[in-house]
Amino acid sequence: MNRIETKQIKDVKLKEPILVEGLPGIGHVGKLVAEHMIAELGAEKVMEIYSSHFPPQVIVLADGTVRLVRSEFYAVDTGDQHLLILVGDHQSATNDGHYELTDAYLQMAVKNGVKRIYTLGGYGLGQLVDTPAVLGAVNNLALVEEMKQYGVVFKENEPGGGIVGASGLLLGFGALAKIDAVCLMGETSGYLVDPKSAQAVLKVLCKALNLDISMQALEERAKEMEKIVARVREMEQAGMHEVTSEEDLRYIQ
Amino acid sequence: MNRIETKQIKDVKLKEPILVEGLPGIGHVGKLVAEHMIAELGAEKVMEIYSSHFPPQVIVLADGTVRLVRSEFYAVDTGDQHLLILVGDHQSATNDGHYELTDAYLQMAVKNGVKRIYTLGGYGLGQLVDTPAVLGAVNNLALVEEMKQYGVVFKENEPGGGIVGASGLLLGFGALAKIDAVCLMGETSGYLVDPKSAQAVLKVLCKALNLDISMQALEERAKEMEKIVARVREMEQAGMHEVTSEEDLRYIQ
Amino acid sequence: MNRIETKQIKDVKLKEPILVEGLPGIGHVGKLVAEHMIAELGAEKVMEIYSSHFPPQVIVLADGTVRLVRSEFYAVDTGDQHLLILVGDHQSATNDGHYELTDAYLQMAVKNGVKRIYTLGGYGLGQLVDTPAVLGAVNNLALVEEMKQYGVVFKENEPGGGIVGASGLLLGFGALAKIDAVCLMGETSGYLVDPKSAQAVLKVLCKALNLDISMQALEERAKEMEKIVARVREMEQAGMHEVTSEEDLRYIQ
Amino acid sequence: MNRIETKQIKDVKLKEPILVEGLPGIGHVGKLVAEHMIAELGAEKVMEIYSSHFPPQVIVLADGTVRLVRSEFYAVDTGDQHLLILVGDHQSATNDGHYELTDAYLQMAVKNGVKRIYTLGGYGLGQLVDTPAVLGAVNNLALVEEMKQYGVVFKENEPGGGIVGASGLLLGFGALAKIDAVCLMGETSGYLVDPKSAQAVLKVLCKALNLDISMQALEERAKEMEKIVARVREMEQAGMHEVTSEEDLRYIQ
Repeated sequence: MNRIETKQIKDVKLKEPILVEGLPGIGHVGKLVAEHMIAELGAEKVMEIYSSHFPPQVIVLADGTVRLVRSEFYAVDTGDQHLLILVGDHQSATNDGHYELTDAYLQMAVKNGVKRIYTLGGYGLGQLVDTPAVLGAVNNLALVEEMKQYGVVFKENEPGGGIVGASGLLLGFGALAKIDAVCLMGETSGYLVDPKSAQAVLKVLCKALNLDISMQALEERAKEMEKIVARVREMEQAGMHEVTSEEDLRYIQ
Repeated sequence: MNRIETKQIKDVKLKEPILVEGLPGIGHVGKLVAEHMIAELGAEKVMEIYSSHFPPQVIVLADGTVRLVRSEFYAVDTGDQHLLILVGDHQSATNDGHYELTDAYLQMAVKNGVKRIYTLGGYGLGQLVDTPAVLGAVNNLALVEEMKQYGVVFKENEPGGGIVGASGLLLGFGALAKIDAVCLMGETSGYLVDPKSAQAVLKVLCKALNLDISMQALEERAKEMEKIVARVREMEQAGMHEVTSEEDLRYIQ
Repeated sequence: MNRIETKQIKDVKLKEPILVEGLPGIGHVGKLVAEHMIAELGAEKVMEIYSSHFPPQVIVLADGTVRLVRSEFYAVDTGDQHLLILVGDHQSATNDGHYELTDAYLQMAVKNGVKRIYTLGGYGLGQLVDTPAVLGAVNNLALVEEMKQYGVVFKENEPGGGIVGASGLLLGFGALAKIDAVCLMGETSGYLVDPKSAQAVLKVLCKALNLDISMQALEERAKEMEKIVARVREMEQAGMHEVTSEEDLRYIQ
Repeated sequence: MNRIETKQIKDVKLKEPILVEGLPGIGHVGKLVAEHMIAELGAEKVMEIYSSHFPPQVIVLADGTVRLVRSEFYAVDTGDQHLLILVGDHQSATNDGHYELTDAYLQMAVKNGVKRIYTLGGYGLGQLVDTPAVLGAVNNLALVEEMKQYGVVFKENEPGGGIVGASGLLLGFGALAKIDAVCLMGETSGYLVDPKSAQAVLKVLCKALNLDISMQALEERAKEMEKIVARVREMEQAGMHEVTSEEDLRYIQ
């Protein structure tokens, strides 16, 4: 077994597609957006990527079957443009693996003639946020002004800790491959799965891609989450700690 | 030294054997079942597997001798069918190693024409359980109904954290190799070696394999454990914490 | 992608240069000194080094653009001598990587005919220090007396825990390559970025290299830090703990 | 750079030597014994072993010079027999490295025709022990009775957690290479460097090797340690915690 195995599911011809990456991360913001897009746009799976760098486990599905941890590329023609959407179960569990997997993702982008990459993530504030802004980072200075038009905020040297994982490395590797790339980060507490932050990111992305996507499913999840957050706040005020059990979070994922 | 070394102990001809995996894990449930089966059925060792992915240590035996950490395949003809049983001292200590070792286990399965795999483990509830159920997960939807007939319970998306280690990966890898595989997980606290949970799993497996195996040894170990659990509960009620010392657990292993 | 990639930025002919290494470490002392030298001496970048051993992230710059984590060599002719200066964002994130990266740094040194190496770092005392001394360690006994002339202090078997990372390994590898090397360690609390300790190290290095470099920028940063330290001390006296927030530190970096 | 580099220091012809391993471990018992033997017997260094599996640092010596972390083989002719003694600064810092380094140590043993291996270590009891026993483990059952004659104690399945690192793996690898090997473990608290436990192990080893080695240096270190232990006990009785500072321990190392 090689350390990374790709499995082509469908052979598609894409014309200068835009790559949207939404792998798991802070608040699962990027993952929520990308999975929402796949569902709403009816994107088709074109490739699966397996790797011994992923956590050594299988995912249990609703019907009792399991599958290996993997990343997936989906493709869709929105009329205006072709999209490639990258989602997955986990980021790499090893240091080298982050680099190797991003390299594999980028090779897929190059092979399909990707002309721009949007990587999506959360920006952890450490506290609950009512109206999440969307921060940006780019791998080509010329993109800053364009992104500002869509409402993206740029803060000097933020995030100070850098952008970790595929969302960051795709910008760095993209620069080497001369592919413009933008990272959109929705402000989020960092403690909870955050569909509200995902909505903020999706709105920006829809402007940038000139897309019209229903937000309803994300709104509903955001409302569910609001209820949990309210309960958390109540319990915090009542002096209780560690109330946000994993079960709560899993329920609304 | 290669990262994985296999050492054939005995050359056996097996006819479409069933592979039963019981490597260490939650509550050592799978390991208890598989070792019990080897003892009761008089299975013979056919292969040893050594790896630098295992923890870097030797096991000290009762007679003062030591041996390297390893996994082992045993084989037995039950009359109705041939069984291959996989047991071992430890799971992989490295991320990649889980994938590489499972690949080695699966190659052994393929080479011997294995037609079905049962992987055994525990399902940690975080609290003591009086009548452990046996949860299932499969790599082929057609197996769900069959397993339900043997009393296996399927819960949507459970375990939520996935199935970690060889018990999970063998299902995922098995699917790629077109070998049907089932994971049987006995409910257990997750804090103690759990022969009662092992009995529950073994009962299901005996039905599935149409086997008749004495449970006496497991029952005796379960009784010993009951005594320790009773003591733990008493001490908990008396307000004492951390009473389940490692020594207690080692005693009954 | 290889585990280490070097990218030549400029082709320079250097004559028996001195290599000064200032990668991140305790109190960021070495990094502060080396970056200060690059700025004050107007050194030019000659090489970038990328590696999958670095943390898997990108650095976000002031203008909103990002770049991969990397190390860099700068070169400058000070009139008296040629200098090669090694700086970077991070040390290796893996055990092997420290060895592999140091090997790459040393190959660059050998290729350029480096005749001596100075590695710079901090020596953590665990408490605030008013007048930081500069400790030394060498890879050739003959260097001890010379270094003492510049005010370097040698304490038997100190640091007791060894010198970790590139600052240490470059001395060890340098010895194998017959290149004299000295490690200069400024005393520092180990809790804060420490421009005062950096000044102490730079003063020693200027004597050793017969250089005259303005300390003004470091002095200003040291004053800013003094204010923070004063505030920390006040708050400590007031009984408050964990007051040195990451934000404070980032502010003055 | 390879992951393991050996450097021959002296070419010696050894006749069926005994290998004694004393790398760092619990209570530094093995290391104390082996270094004491090298000093008392006047053994000569014959090989150095470097590896990127060791911690990425250099050791600072008393004279201000440094050297890479390494293991070393020493050789001596005691009149009765030839001894090879293996000492070092650190065990492997990576999982695979334990296996790879032990393999390198064993290759050296095989190349020199080693007929028996003694690995030395501590057996942590978690509390101070006045008269440390010496536990044994072997890789050939025939050795148990011989070792009992020298006062070695064998306890069923002890140590329960196995023997970790080179002291254990050399027995396991030795068995594969048909070299008899014994692990001698001096009882020790596990909290302190323990020259008293080292004396107990050395006495057994002297009987086994029919050697007469002065214990004076170890006795003196044991007395120094007794004083520290007495102080620790006093302070514990006075209700103070964490009094055994690292400095204390380093002082007597």
